[in-house]
Amino acid sequence: MSTFSSLNCPSSSSCSRIVPSSASSSLPGNHQRIIVSSIPLQFLSKKASLQSPRNPYRNVVCMQDGVVAATAPPLSNQTYMKKLKDELLSIPTSDECKDAAGFDNNEKESTVSITVVGASGDLAKKKIFPALFALYYEDCLPKHFTVFGYARSKMSDGELRNMVSKTLTCRIDKRENCSEKMEQFLKRCFFHSGQYDSLDNFAELDKKLKEHEGGRISNRLFYLSVPPNIFIDAVRCASSSASSANGWTRVIVEKPFGRDSESSTALTRGLKQYLVEDQIFRIDHYLGKELVENLSVLRFSNLIFEPLWSRQYIRNVQLIFSEDFGTEGRGGYFNNYGIIRDIMQNHLLQILALFAMETPVSLDAEDIRNEKVKVLRSMKPLQLGNVVIGQYKSHTKGEITYPAYTDDKTVPKDSLTPTFAAAALFIDNARWDGVPFLMKAGKALHNKRAEIRVQFRHVPGNLYKRNFGTDLDGATNELVIRVQPDEAIYLKINNKVPGLGMRLDRSNLNLHYAARYAKEIPDAYERLLLDAIEGERRLFIRSDELDAAWELFTPLLKELEEKKIIPEYYPYGSRGPVGAHYLAARYNVRWGDLGAEH
Amino acid sequence: MSTFSSLNCPSSSSCSRIVPSSASSSLPGNHQRIIVSSIPLQFLSKKASLQSPRNPYRNVVCMQDGVVAATAPPLSNQTYMKKLKDELLSIPTSDECKDAAGFDNNEKESTVSITVVGASGDLAKKKIFPALFALYYEDCLPKHFTVFGYARSKMSDGELRNMVSKTLTCRIDKRENCSEKMEQFLKRCFFHSGQYDSLDNFAELDKKLKEHEGGRISNRLFYLSVPPNIFIDAVRCASSSASSANGWTRVIVEKPFGRDSESSTALTRGLKQYLVEDQIFRIDHYLGKELVENLSVLRFSNLIFEPLWSRQYIRNVQLIFSEDFGTEGRGGYFNNYGIIRDIMQNHLLQILALFAMETPVSLDAEDIRNEKVKVLRSMKPLQLGNVVIGQYKSHTKGEITYPAYTDDKTVPKDSLTPTFAAAALFIDNARWDGVPFLMKAGKALHNKRAEIRVQFRHVPGNLYKRNFGTDLDGATNELVIRVQPDEAIYLKINNKVPGLGMRLDRSNLNLHYAARYAKEIPDAYERLLLDAIEGERRLFIRSDELDAAWELFTPLLKELEEKKIIPEYYPYGSRGPVGAHYLAARYNVRWGDLGAEH
Repeated sequence: MSTFSSLNCPSSSSCSRIVPSSASSSLPGNHQRIIVSSIPLQFLSKKASLQSPRNPYRNVVCMQDGVVAATAPPLSNQTYMKKLKDELLSIPTSDECKDAAGFDNNEKESTVSITVVGASGDLAKKKIFPALFALYYEDCLPKHFTVFGYARSKMSDGELRNMVSKTLTCRIDKRENCSEKMEQFLKRCFFHSGQYDSLDNFAELDKKLKEHEGGRISNRLFYLSVPPNIFIDAVRCASSSASSANGWTRVIVEKPFGRDSESSTALTRGLKQYLVEDQIFRIDHYLGKELVENLSVLRFSNLIFEPLWSRQYIRNVQLIFSEDFGTEGRGGYFNNYGIIRDIMQNHLLQILALFAMETPVSLDAEDIRNEKVKVLRSMKPLQLGNVVIGQYKSHTKGEITYPAYTDDKTVPKDSLTPTFAAAALFIDNARWDGVPFLMKAGKALHNKRAEIRVQFRHVPGNLYKRNFGTDLDGATNELVIRVQPDEAIYLKINNKVPGLGMRLDRSNLNLHYAARYAKEIPDAYERLLLDAIEGERRLFIRSDELDAAWELFTPLLKELEEKKIIPEYYPYGSRGPVGAHYLAARYNVRWGDLGAEH
Repeated sequence: MSTFSSLNCPSSSSCSRIVPSSASSSLPGNHQRIIVSSIPLQFLSKKASLQSPRNPYRNVVCMQDGVVAATAPPLSNQTYMKKLKDELLSIPTSDECKDAAGFDNNEKESTVSITVVGASGDLAKKKIFPALFALYYEDCLPKHFTVFGYARSKMSDGELRNMVSKTLTCRIDKRENCSEKMEQFLKRCFFHSGQYDSLDNFAELDKKLKEHEGGRISNRLFYLSVPPNIFIDAVRCASSSASSANGWTRVIVEKPFGRDSESSTALTRGLKQYLVEDQIFRIDHYLGKELVENLSVLRFSNLIFEPLWSRQYIRNVQLIFSEDFGTEGRGGYFNNYGIIRDIMQNHLLQILALFAMETPVSLDAEDIRNEKVKVLRSMKPLQLGNVVIGQYKSHTKGEITYPAYTDDKTVPKDSLTPTFAAAALFIDNARWDGVPFLMKAGKALHNKRAEIRVQFRHVPGNLYKRNFGTDLDGATNELVIRVQPDEAIYLKINNKVPGLGMRLDRSNLNLHYAARYAKEIPDAYERLLLDAIEGERRLFIRSDELDAAWELFTPLLKELEEKKIIPEYYPYGSRGPVGAHYLAARYNVRWGDLGAEH
């Protein structure tokens, strides 16, 4: 049985969300009801207000079509039942959503402190602070919050603010009061200098945090934006010296989570000396991407897709990631990992698991993660023969010469690290037996793209087969979910070309986000940070998921390294090694992204 | 076993078509092969050139993606097999298609004469002559053809040409050589004055036709663009005095085909005194509409649709026709028929049958018509209680007063003739049991539209149900095929609204013809005239289809008239009688065209 916790609706409706909480609820039965905006808190039963102590906001969903749906405990007042009816018939504005919050009563009692450990690093500057500001701008952060930068360097609060201010932007230009909001946000930002392994330094941080918390319930989020070898030390210190005394303490970590099963297990073991599973938030920022979030919506809330989602109708699934640039002098980290660890084992595999999972019992994090683990554990061992690796070589185009991977000064000249990989994976269960899941990831390719392509089977006994000539492949229905850039969903269908003849072509049923939705799409980090603050774990990787993912890739990675498999070299800016085509051809697949039309 | 007959590809590829012919072929086995453009006729076996005497063109399909697929008898020459291979690898241009025709050898021997009986009428002027010209412009007419206007009025050839020229247009502006082509076309047009019941007058026509045919094989098409009470006379005279001696003779008739089972049967019996079934081409011009033609393509050549095409996934189907004008002083004919006979019993029912039919054995006309008849014969009798009728009344908007139906001077003041009707129909077979097929047709409504809407079932056990609030209807997937105006196909899907929350909305996967296809869409009459010339009967109504359609509607029509059911009056320009909503509600349906979003 799931209950809801939800952030209240802020002034902008962008932040209205319904979040199933996996917290064990004290409410008997399933008290999902529809409530409306202005019901004073005193009419809510006492139990209700205790329902989710971490997350005391009321549950309100603002549907675009104007329906307000929400969950709440039973109402105890007839008058309000009438009011409820009346208001259900009216269309709420976003202001009503704001009123609906019942914010202040609870807000006074709690505060959230977000400590960015490694505050002077690139990720912090480019992603974390801007995402926090965007959340603040959208009124998605709680009333009482503080942001602390933590790093070894010496810096004043003012210097931190100055540094941070340089990368803050309003997501779209010309937003109202942007500079004013920036001003206010920066006032909430502070800096604390300290070593990552110093209990004392973290104890000093704790003291400062307490000052800001001013006696309220203290919730603390640590974002470890530091190299992985520092993870354990920082967690030990934060946990021992700077944990919240009366609220929650959570830690966000970013990949790499080890480089194989053993190192990953060691890391998890290390983290769990100081944290319980629920406190660990492993970010895979691909899970925060809009169209990856939409994957489950598409599948589970559209009757037209759900029946097709199996080996009976799907011929193959392609998960494609490409970058149009190389390591460009920053190959030091990458060379130790390679593209398989950097992209496949996490981002693409996570998408695969989401795509292929059975219907979860609910949208609760644990239910979804349970299903994802089942997919990962059902996967056939990955054979070397089902993998193609590549490495980009130098390429001259006109006047410009693009460097080889090994031209990168931070990369050893004899490096065999793959900058490209393609793999055919199989899920050994009833739904997906025999359906190739093809992954492809590479750097220094001809374009920049992340997409999911679902190729459906040929129509059996197709009446129109003769009209396709011999090109049945070109006539296969395909669903493309373009994760980035320029988000879109399109469904390739066979259609009669208008005219007197009976010619067929493939046309797209198209949903282009930029054309459909005026609103800009939030960065993945915004979503993930907000989820971590709310305790929503759906988009984070659980330890057993991580184990299963490594279990799949570790034998392959070891074999590649032990056998010193030489990558197929492909020119910088090209479409990658031709080996990827032969791999696809073995399973009677044609890469959807490299055709005449995409 | 079906064989192909096909018009050759003319200079514009628009006319390239593959047409399964139901003519009994003399070819043993299924000699479907791929041939290419420039194979001289002498390499084709003699049998082949006799394969379809009425239709001697070679079979070439120009696929938009560049593949040339075609059917032909086996080749007897090795050299040409090699050439075939070479050319298959090259992309043909439309010029190659022209070369591929092998036209002249056969063309010399045959000619087509098209006689428009009732040449001075509206339909002839507005539709038939312009359609013939468009076909000529597109090189879709055979080399030797003649157009004869036949009417009681006295007119010279020049006068006819002058009359015809006023309505000829090139389908899109600024087409090349349009006026030159018009000139040439008009030179092929002649007039013959005569009574519709005069054997002598038709014999005179026959003499003139013979002169033009110049000893070639003579094929003759009569288009009866005259009131139905003249049909039999004209057919008798044409058949007795002006039939082709050595080619085919075909007659196109337009609705009304009677006004109930009895009169329709009488008409058919009358026609069949002089014609066999194969000679009768009953036009339902809705079957010539681009998107109606596309209906079968969508369904049978897309795996994503076919599995969904049944009661298991489809909740209801809506067939909607509306006009935004009334009879406007021309209600004389209409008042005797009413909207049910005028639109429902033919156009909408034909679309329903096409939509709902089982997969035909082939695309051959007889196979398709067999399946359509099965649908019609499986339909439950139409109950009066499942029908709502309406009639428009006067309405004043601002300064303008729109007339009531009975304000039309050609309409009796006490007329009860419905100008609007809605009906719920059911098909009593395994595929469709219990699925309401809702029809709605009306004049003087708020818009002009013809569309097919397929509403799918709710997702069972929908994980996201709570996100839709109470509006599950608004969350149902819907496939909309907009037949006119502004042709489009769109699929309403539930999608996550981009942003941090989990809000869902309905977005469209959209295929807008004007945006996708640069080419203008031919008028239905062009397609149908060409089909009649080619002997392709797929889009024409067979006698038993017509009988079944009348059988369904005749009892209802009689009951309406006998009981003098009073229509529900609705204001001119409105959305029609509210009764249509109650009818839909009875079957838990919501009209898709009258929602907030369409």
